[in-house]
Amino acid sequence: MPMLGQNQYGKAETRVVRMVRDGDVHHIKDLNVSVALSGDMADVHRHGDNTGVLPTDTMKNTVYAFAKERGIATAEHFGIELARHFVGSQETIRTARVRIEEYAWERIETGREARHSFVRAGQETRTAQVRYDGRDWEVLSGLRDLTVMNSTDSEFHGFVKDPYTTLPEARDRILATDVHARWRHGWSDAARPEPDWDAAYEGARADLLAAFAETYSLSLQQTLYAMGARVIERRPGIDEIRLSLPNKHHFLVDLAPFGLTNDNEVYFAADRPYGLIEATVLRDGAEARIPTD
Amino acid sequence: MPMLGQNQYGKAETRVVRMVRDGDVHHIKDLNVSVALSGDMADVHRHGDNTGVLPTDTMKNTVYAFAKERGIATAEHFGIELARHFVGSQETIRTARVRIEEYAWERIETGREARHSFVRAGQETRTAQVRYDGRDWEVLSGLRDLTVMNSTDSEFHGFVKDPYTTLPEARDRILATDVHARWRHGWSDAARPEPDWDAAYEGARADLLAAFAETYSLSLQQTLYAMGARVIERRPGIDEIRLSLPNKHHFLVDLAPFGLTNDNEVYFAADRPYGLIEATVLRDGAEARIPTD
Amino acid sequence: MPMLGQNQYGKAETRVVRMVRDGDVHHIKDLNVSVALSGDMADVHRHGDNTGVLPTDTMKNTVYAFAKERGIATAEHFGIELARHFVGSQETIRTARVRIEEYAWERIETGREARHSFVRAGQETRTAQVRYDGRDWEVLSGLRDLTVMNSTDSEFHGFVKDPYTTLPEARDRILATDVHARWRHGWSDAARPEPDWDAAYEGARADLLAAFAETYSLSLQQTLYAMGARVIERRPGIDEIRLSLPNKHHFLVDLAPFGLTNDNEVYFAADRPYGLIEATVLRDGAEARIPTD
Amino acid sequence: MPMLGQNQYGKAETRVVRMVRDGDVHHIKDLNVSVALSGDMADVHRHGDNTGVLPTDTMKNTVYAFAKERGIATAEHFGIELARHFVGSQETIRTARVRIEEYAWERIETGREARHSFVRAGQETRTAQVRYDGRDWEVLSGLRDLTVMNSTDSEFHGFVKDPYTTLPEARDRILATDVHARWRHGWSDAARPEPDWDAAYEGARADLLAAFAETYSLSLQQTLYAMGARVIERRPGIDEIRLSLPNKHHFLVDLAPFGLTNDNEVYFAADRPYGLIEATVLRDGAEARIPTD
Repeated sequence: MPMLGQNQYGKAETRVVRMVRDGDVHHIKDLNVSVALSGDMADVHRHGDNTGVLPTDTMKNTVYAFAKERGIATAEHFGIELARHFVGSQETIRTARVRIEEYAWERIETGREARHSFVRAGQETRTAQVRYDGRDWEVLSGLRDLTVMNSTDSEFHGFVKDPYTTLPEARDRILATDVHARWRHGWSDAARPEPDWDAAYEGARADLLAAFAETYSLSLQQTLYAMGARVIERRPGIDEIRLSLPNKHHFLVDLAPFGLTNDNEVYFAADRPYGLIEATVLRDGAEARIPTD
Repeated sequence: MPMLGQNQYGKAETRVVRMVRDGDVHHIKDLNVSVALSGDMADVHRHGDNTGVLPTDTMKNTVYAFAKERGIATAEHFGIELARHFVGSQETIRTARVRIEEYAWERIETGREARHSFVRAGQETRTAQVRYDGRDWEVLSGLRDLTVMNSTDSEFHGFVKDPYTTLPEARDRILATDVHARWRHGWSDAARPEPDWDAAYEGARADLLAAFAETYSLSLQQTLYAMGARVIERRPGIDEIRLSLPNKHHFLVDLAPFGLTNDNEVYFAADRPYGLIEATVLRDGAEARIPTD
Repeated sequence: MPMLGQNQYGKAETRVVRMVRDGDVHHIKDLNVSVALSGDMADVHRHGDNTGVLPTDTMKNTVYAFAKERGIATAEHFGIELARHFVGSQETIRTARVRIEEYAWERIETGREARHSFVRAGQETRTAQVRYDGRDWEVLSGLRDLTVMNSTDSEFHGFVKDPYTTLPEARDRILATDVHARWRHGWSDAARPEPDWDAAYEGARADLLAAFAETYSLSLQQTLYAMGARVIERRPGIDEIRLSLPNKHHFLVDLAPFGLTNDNEVYFAADRPYGLIEATVLRDGAEARIPTD
Repeated sequence: MPMLGQNQYGKAETRVVRMVRDGDVHHIKDLNVSVALSGDMADVHRHGDNTGVLPTDTMKNTVYAFAKERGIATAEHFGIELARHFVGSQETIRTARVRIEEYAWERIETGREARHSFVRAGQETRTAQVRYDGRDWEVLSGLRDLTVMNSTDSEFHGFVKDPYTTLPEARDRILATDVHARWRHGWSDAARPEPDWDAAYEGARADLLAAFAETYSLSLQQTLYAMGARVIERRPGIDEIRLSLPNKHHFLVDLAPFGLTNDNEVYFAADRPYGLIEATVLRDGAEARIPTD
């Protein structure tokens, strides 16, 4: 008989907006929450026996009820509250994974800063993932779609030339990417106080941007490593970071047919194909736990 | 024999990035340019006779060559340069329409502001459209995907109740939308100096945000009109504006089954369906020219 | 005071699935319905007076109620039922426009054809649009995302060469496009029986495919005209058709650096930029009413 | 010093169309190929030393050259050819992973079947992934976006009721999902002949559809397991399959306010949130190797 392997189920993409009113000054948290639970689920897979199955609709309800009862201090803390609840709630549920995307809002400024009027800010999405097995905690924070560009200080040469290589060496090129980063916090024991998740996020984000801007790049791999190493070196609470960086190619347009020179002025921003550079950077001695695939 | 009606052809979505180097301080313009030409094109449609057809590939080349030769001061001015060129270049080409999307970049700040490192800014896309028939100019500027929310100061009641109406009246609701706006400049005569397109854009954008934030809303239609009217009243160079505002519904979650009250605190942000409110606001006496469909 | 111009409002993208049970043989209609109403709406725009405003939520309810009460014979007929209802229902509502997308399902075949198991079919989406002003009807049918390719029988040469032209002439190229078509039926008087909308759709779709396959093409404009003319010639109930055809460029890859010839064998399928060819074809004497912009 | 963990780099989404001409009957293969290589890449990450780096541009060239030289029999075999080449080509490259998406085309029928005119077929995308470390081969085949629906024969009841549960029990509901499946072939030794990849694909796809249609479902987990088990039982060459099935909720609309009953006739097709059910099914004794996260 076929064996049942790893399995999980849950409610994906519950969109919750939590408003907090401080007089007529309002504060928004805007999240997209995905819950996945696993445990002893053989009977439902083999026989359709739902006696151990908490409906995914209930997970959605729990997200909304917790948003009211406990508030949303940070995505990470909200994920911890949810994961703890689900793992403790049913004997069949052994592990919970809560993934959250957070969308940023800024106050509209019209002379003075508005008290309850907002505009969506930035391109990037902040992410958090909490995993809990009843004993240990694993918290990943991150971001995606942070699009950055260096218009110089990037070269690429000295690479392998095999019979299929036609790429010319580049001494001055544009380097552009969409940063997709996830980092794992050392915090794993609920007996210890939680880190300041917002400060950790702002710090890691600033490190990533600074390392990108300040690295004179001989390859996107070098820039990637510099970005990850910057976070590991400066944030003692972070043990591991994984970066996935598409190389958003900007090709110099050949203007010679029109009698023009192109002195690194006019580029074609290409869509596909794109290079894709991915790596994990770890604190010395740390275990690699962020999935690589 | 079937008649050939309105027709146009062109090259869509030419992605051009123009870099200007002021010493080691660099400046970016990042555009997506779509050209559409029309004129006397019966022969190519009926007989495949290409003698009057400028290839769309040539339009792409022209975008890149003009980016070098003339630079990109603003999307609007670049569109004017292109449209003038195409209409004058071939006898068969009577009208040119150039549509441009512009993506914003900010300098990365790492202590001081970076000179050649950038991060994509904001959610919205700035748009421009130039139409030229060899005599008159029509310039539309605009934006889309400017997502805004008022967390209070919005009501909706007193509406029609027909047999299919179940919506309860609302005395305090969230009002959220993605602003999609296009405005038409009064400028149409190339003998007069062009407006300051950037100042006009910043002004209209600020007006839209301010009117959204400051309007106590009894309906999204009222807010829309207030936004459009604000631009018409404050920007003498703008004769017409059309707004398309999806009502991004935020539904209060019913927490009563869990023994909780929801005092305008927890919302479900819905995707579909959505209300869609669209209208044109005009300067008194102006002609409506922005398409409505 | 700023003037209010053309305006409309409605509920967009109401997703309705209607199941009909014929014993244990089930039939699906799967639609995405967008309603837009217009009329005497000045008061709500200027003063937030909702006394003439039918809520968009009610439009959604009406879609669902009509799906039950009247069934969904075709998208076109369902749109007619809805438009007639809305225009007649309130004094303030003068015009209704109902847009519908329809998604196709086929029965799963597992030896015999399943009675109530289905798989989504095809890439294209069927569309319908009904407009009614209380007197005349205008019905557009159409499709989009019907992706087609001719791997030969396409040339492109004899075009204009201006100083920006570098495109070589092509004697044998791939011609590929995503067909986006809308056609207007002659039917406009509710006193006459409605056409067989399904037969008209199947006929026009077959004509478009056949004309695409059978036309030896000297330009995509020629192919476009042949496709539109085929429909006008063969479908007396259709007076006008508008086609929008992106030229999905397939570029021959230069394999010479690897000592290989590329005899029209290996292509790079490009994303952007793309040519975009658009035109209307009309029955002789018919009025052009499908928007061109 | 921060450690470099798992890393890989490559060229993603190379779009290659390969045409084969059998007289005037043409055959298309339309692929999207993503290559990722890993090995001894510490120097490029730490020092920007590119001496062991094969450019991603070369990977793209290799895809095109191989399409010409070796043809594309199947996505799986093409992936094997590429992976073998890359792993053998440089000392620094230890492992290659090639991911391919394949898009299906059918001949246009216009009376008879066209010889060189095609229409894109179906909604689903066929996938293949080949991984090679110089010794063992791992081949995953699969599909995604195969959207299916059972309009009856689905129940959901007997589940856990906790304080956050409000979901009513369902005795007759719609079950709809987008099938995302990947299966691992037992073949791993290049000394043995490759399986018939196309036959394996068609077989597994038919099994998935048949098991979906024929399973009277008490939960989506049960349906998932039945689908996976069907493949494992009937396809001896497949050792493992992983399914990811979103529960595309179709909610019965409450028509009571309009004096109508809804006897499983009118549904709202919801977008978000959605249930997400994921599991691996294995041949007894097989090792689980498909990533679960």
